[in-house]
Amino acid sequence: MTGPEPLPPAPDVEVIGLDADDTLWHNESFYADAGATFAEIIAPWIPDGEDVASRHYETERRNLELFGYGAKGFTLSMIETAIELSGGRVSSAAIGELLALGKRMLAHPVDLLDGVREAVERLAEHHRLVVVTKGDLFHQEQKFAASGLDALVDRVEVVSEKDVRTYRSVIGRVGVDPSRFLMVGNSVRSDVLPPIEAGGHAAHVPYEITWVHEHVDDAPVAFPVLPSLSAFADWITTR
Amino acid sequence: MTGPEPLPPAPDVEVIGLDADDTLWHNESFYADAGATFAEIIAPWIPDGEDVASRHYETERRNLELFGYGAKGFTLSMIETAIELSGGRVSSAAIGELLALGKRMLAHPVDLLDGVREAVERLAEHHRLVVVTKGDLFHQEQKFAASGLDALVDRVEVVSEKDVRTYRSVIGRVGVDPSRFLMVGNSVRSDVLPPIEAGGHAAHVPYEITWVHEHVDDAPVAFPVLPSLSAFADWITTR
Repeated sequence: MTGPEPLPPAPDVEVIGLDADDTLWHNESFYADAGATFAEIIAPWIPDGEDVASRHYETERRNLELFGYGAKGFTLSMIETAIELSGGRVSSAAIGELLALGKRMLAHPVDLLDGVREAVERLAEHHRLVVVTKGDLFHQEQKFAASGLDALVDRVEVVSEKDVRTYRSVIGRVGVDPSRFLMVGNSVRSDVLPPIEAGGHAAHVPYEITWVHEHVDDAPVAFPVLPSLSAFADWITTR
Repeated sequence: MTGPEPLPPAPDVEVIGLDADDTLWHNESFYADAGATFAEIIAPWIPDGEDVASRHYETERRNLELFGYGAKGFTLSMIETAIELSGGRVSSAAIGELLALGKRMLAHPVDLLDGVREAVERLAEHHRLVVVTKGDLFHQEQKFAASGLDALVDRVEVVSEKDVRTYRSVIGRVGVDPSRFLMVGNSVRSDVLPPIEAGGHAAHVPYEITWVHEHVDDAPVAFPVLPSLSAFADWITTR
C-alpha cells in the first residue's frame, strides 16, 4: 500500500515536530505572487511565450547547491533568470525592482493559517513541540518571533535540508526515542517520508499550493492525511 | 582596566566555543578581494573618487535587518549599490558578473589558517568543542563539512547573531555552567564581549583584517589576547 490511507489511530508520542512554512503560516502563496510579479517586471525584455516560472525554477534548482532554500536565493535566481532570458538586455531599473520585490518577501508580515494558533495551543497542552523548518536561518527566526507562537514551542530547529540524517539529528537533540516523535507538515517529501524513515511517525496536512520541488508522485509508505492543523490536533489529542 | 591585559592563567573550562570565519579558516580576506573586484566591475559607471567600499558597507548595514550575515546578502547589496551609484546606468552584463562573483564566494574552497588543524586536535584531547558561527546556515554547514574538522568537534551552532542571549542559549544547549565555557575568536564584538557578559570566559585571537562592522574601539572588560589558535591551545592546555 502506498500514499494516503484511511485515518489510523494516532500513535502515542511525546514530541511533535511542526513544519513552519505552509503548515503554520502562509508562504508558497507569497512565492507564487512574487513569481507573477517577477514575470510582469521583466515582460518587456522577454520573448512572447517564454515560460518565465519554469525557467526561474530551473535556475533555482541549479543554484540550490550554492544558495540553499530561502528568499535571498530566490531573489538572486530571479536576477540571474532575468539577465539570461533577456539576453542581457533587461534594464538595471528592472533589476532594482526585483531587489525590491525580494525585500518585500523578506519583510512580509507572518500570516498564520486559519485555526493554527488554537491548534498549537491544544497540542502544547500534552506534547513538547519543536518547530523544524528549512531555509534561511535569519529569516525563519524572524518569522517565528513574529508568529506569536514562541511561548508554546520548546525549540526551533532551522535546518538546511530535511532529510533522514537531519531528522535523526533533530530527534537526538530533542532527546526522545524516534518512536515517540511525530512530524506534521505540508510536504510529503520533506515532512513525511524522512521522519518515517528515521523511525518516527508523520502526518500530512496539505497546503493549497505545493512548490514543484516538494512534489512527490508516488509515496512508498502509508501515512495519515488531515485537512488542517486543527483536524490534526483533534486526531492526536483524542487517541 | 579595559581591553587586552597581560596573559592571565587559563580558566578551568570543560567546553571551548570556537568561532569559524577568520578563526578556523580565512574569510574576511575573500570578502576584501571580492570588494576590490566589485569596484573594478562597476568602475565604468561610477564617478571618479566615489568610495565604493564605504557605500557598499552602508548598503549592507542598512540591509542587515532583512538579510542577516553572509555571502548572499553581500551579493544582493553589491547589486543594489551598483544600481544606486551608477544612477541606474550599470549594464545587466556587469550585474551578471556580480552574481558570478557572489557564486565564486559561496563556492570558494575552505582554507584553514596556519596551524589550525593541529591546534584543534590538541584542544579536542581535553575539551568538548563547539563551533559557534554566525551567518548563512547552508553556507556555514558546507564550509564546516569541507573543513575536515567535523570529527574533532562535538556540535556546530550556526546562529543569526552573536549576542548575550545567543551565548546563554548555546551554553544551555551544550549543558554546562557558564563558568565552564570559554569562547575563542577573532571578533571582540561577537566572540569576546557577549560570552563574558553571559558569565563565561573568552579569548581573542585577532585575524589580519577586521570587518568594520566587528570593530570595537574600547572594550569595557579585560580579556586575554593570543596571536594564533596554536598559542591559544598552548595557553589553555598548560594551565
